[in-house]
Amino acid sequence: MVGVVGGGQLARMMHQAGIPLGIRFKLLADTPQESAAQVVGTTVLGDYRDLDTLRAFAADCDVITFDHEHVPTEHLRTLQAEGVAVRPGPDALVNAQDKGVMRAKLDSIGVPCPRHRLVADPADVTAFAHEGEGYPVVLKTVRGGYDGKGVWVVRDETEAAAPFLAGVPVLAEEKVDFRRELAASVVRSPSGQAVAYPVVESLQENGICAEVTAPAPDLDPALSDEAQQLALRIAGELDITGHLAVELFQTRDGRILVNELAMRPHNSGHWSQDGAVTSQFENHLRAVLDLPLGDPRPRAKWTVMVNVLGGDYPDMYRAFLHCMARDPGLKIHMYGKDVKPGRKVGHVNVFGDDLEDVRERARHAAAYLRGTITE
Amino acid sequence: MVGVVGGGQLARMMHQAGIPLGIRFKLLADTPQESAAQVVGTTVLGDYRDLDTLRAFAADCDVITFDHEHVPTEHLRTLQAEGVAVRPGPDALVNAQDKGVMRAKLDSIGVPCPRHRLVADPADVTAFAHEGEGYPVVLKTVRGGYDGKGVWVVRDETEAAAPFLAGVPVLAEEKVDFRRELAASVVRSPSGQAVAYPVVESLQENGICAEVTAPAPDLDPALSDEAQQLALRIAGELDITGHLAVELFQTRDGRILVNELAMRPHNSGHWSQDGAVTSQFENHLRAVLDLPLGDPRPRAKWTVMVNVLGGDYPDMYRAFLHCMARDPGLKIHMYGKDVKPGRKVGHVNVFGDDLEDVRERARHAAAYLRGTITE
Repeated sequence: MVGVVGGGQLARMMHQAGIPLGIRFKLLADTPQESAAQVVGTTVLGDYRDLDTLRAFAADCDVITFDHEHVPTEHLRTLQAEGVAVRPGPDALVNAQDKGVMRAKLDSIGVPCPRHRLVADPADVTAFAHEGEGYPVVLKTVRGGYDGKGVWVVRDETEAAAPFLAGVPVLAEEKVDFRRELAASVVRSPSGQAVAYPVVESLQENGICAEVTAPAPDLDPALSDEAQQLALRIAGELDITGHLAVELFQTRDGRILVNELAMRPHNSGHWSQDGAVTSQFENHLRAVLDLPLGDPRPRAKWTVMVNVLGGDYPDMYRAFLHCMARDPGLKIHMYGKDVKPGRKVGHVNVFGDDLEDVRERARHAAAYLRGTITE
Repeated sequence: MVGVVGGGQLARMMHQAGIPLGIRFKLLADTPQESAAQVVGTTVLGDYRDLDTLRAFAADCDVITFDHEHVPTEHLRTLQAEGVAVRPGPDALVNAQDKGVMRAKLDSIGVPCPRHRLVADPADVTAFAHEGEGYPVVLKTVRGGYDGKGVWVVRDETEAAAPFLAGVPVLAEEKVDFRRELAASVVRSPSGQAVAYPVVESLQENGICAEVTAPAPDLDPALSDEAQQLALRIAGELDITGHLAVELFQTRDGRILVNELAMRPHNSGHWSQDGAVTSQFENHLRAVLDLPLGDPRPRAKWTVMVNVLGGDYPDMYRAFLHCMARDPGLKIHMYGKDVKPGRKVGHVNVFGDDLEDVRERARHAAAYLRGTITE
């Protein structure tokens, strides 16, 4: 029995991927309406911040893993000390939970990152800026951020005040003048087996992953190898179990810098459901159960994933029909969530030989579903 | 909400295929241990032969469909009369439930079948035999058979006695001297849209589908077209909604004859989970919901499916590990069933460009899982 903490779409898609493996699946969710709770057979409702809830949930699980990174690290340490198989383990996961810990760890193993340091107050941000090329500076709360939340790009000391209001430590980073964003994903098992997916290109809009192209077009094979090796090295050095997504900046002068780490299936890997021999969800489950890993290679020359965001119309059903009728090759993945403007409610994958065609089809479907185009 | 009657592996795989479509799924199962009941969020336990149970189950469903063909036809007629969307409908489904009805219907629309007629007793079987080329003759009870059950190949009048013991009408058919068995699958929606999968070759062992190769190797394109057209015509004439598998004999003189019909996802279509753009399970769900159908074309040059049968060892786990480690490209589909000798407990799909390689890998994995080989 695999226990998954969190009832979002990642747990939903893990469940889907686990069915062919014959895996029994149990979910800890907040409400029965959540994305994964709609489809998983065994759902326990409870608060993942409560140690006793976690302890009771884990009691009949062979292993627990995660839909998100918000479970308190100290609770995971307690569970692990009590004999629960927590994968990834708390010592690895803290690097995805706390950006300060992550930067310090990556520095210690010599992984290239944007220039960064913890800052004490707005005046310290200005000092940080002047240590480099000045403002703008990126500020991040070390915990709690996702999808652009907890991240600010500030142009002066006045703007630098906002991040400190929460009373959480703040990390300052140089604003990298990148050519594009890439993501290198690997999956690693407790016994140390690891596989690397092709490096993908990721387009972000307003801090949210909007579109992924696999593999990244026009990527120098040497840089691709470097990114894969880097991700494998991070997974090994941090002793990560399961899927690791390393979000990268490709700089204009051809270097790669680590932006963020995610230790669970990740939006940048959704293309693999229809574009790879083994999806990130299946390989994550194989890894946390220490099963041999599946082939991560692409099945198509190009696969493009575009996120479906909610638009102004709460009912997507007619748009859904239209998109299916227009493009029988479209792979639609809906999360069962209520439609709200800007909310991720699904994604589409399209694969094929012609990148322009594949990208146009995926973008069209996502825009039509959102309602920003009507033909 | 789609209600599925029956908790077997077909319902399990339908559920899996429905998750990305955002479909809510409800199951009517016998026990919580059944294959689909393990993974479906909403399972109702009850007897599918009881009208009130069916009525209560269907009350909050947009449509009901089936894991098997054993629901009494008259109950389905009652539900339909009461306004329940039953797909496929009882007038279509009866052709998959009652072989006498099916043969009469196919005769009436001019579909080529083996020589056949209902027989009254063993003496009548001998008369039937002598109307053609003599014994052996195939005898089938008109209802209740599957996976070789309810089918006898008899060599003389003494052997012909057994099928009559159950008191069910018996159908006699010539024993076709076939070159091989094929299957042509189509999916049809209530609005009349239909898609045809590539015609596959099916190998049977002891009346159970053992292996499927998609597409059927060395199949004359004209015969392939004929088989697809035949399946589309049957689906239309019988007004079938959902997946229809037409099991065919390819005779040594190059004709095709209809052996059986199945109106649900079918073992001969399991290859499509990993080998087609849209699986039979997804297209069946799209059809019963009258959603536009997905592309049925193959994604690989060859896909081979081999069923995993239970062997002498109840614990397949070590074999499972071995197979995954040996072949990272193997797609294993386990049904969550207890292992019993000869029981279908899963299947494996392998795809690729080299048919011999693909077939060897699939056969090896299935044999290793069963325990008939140990290396």
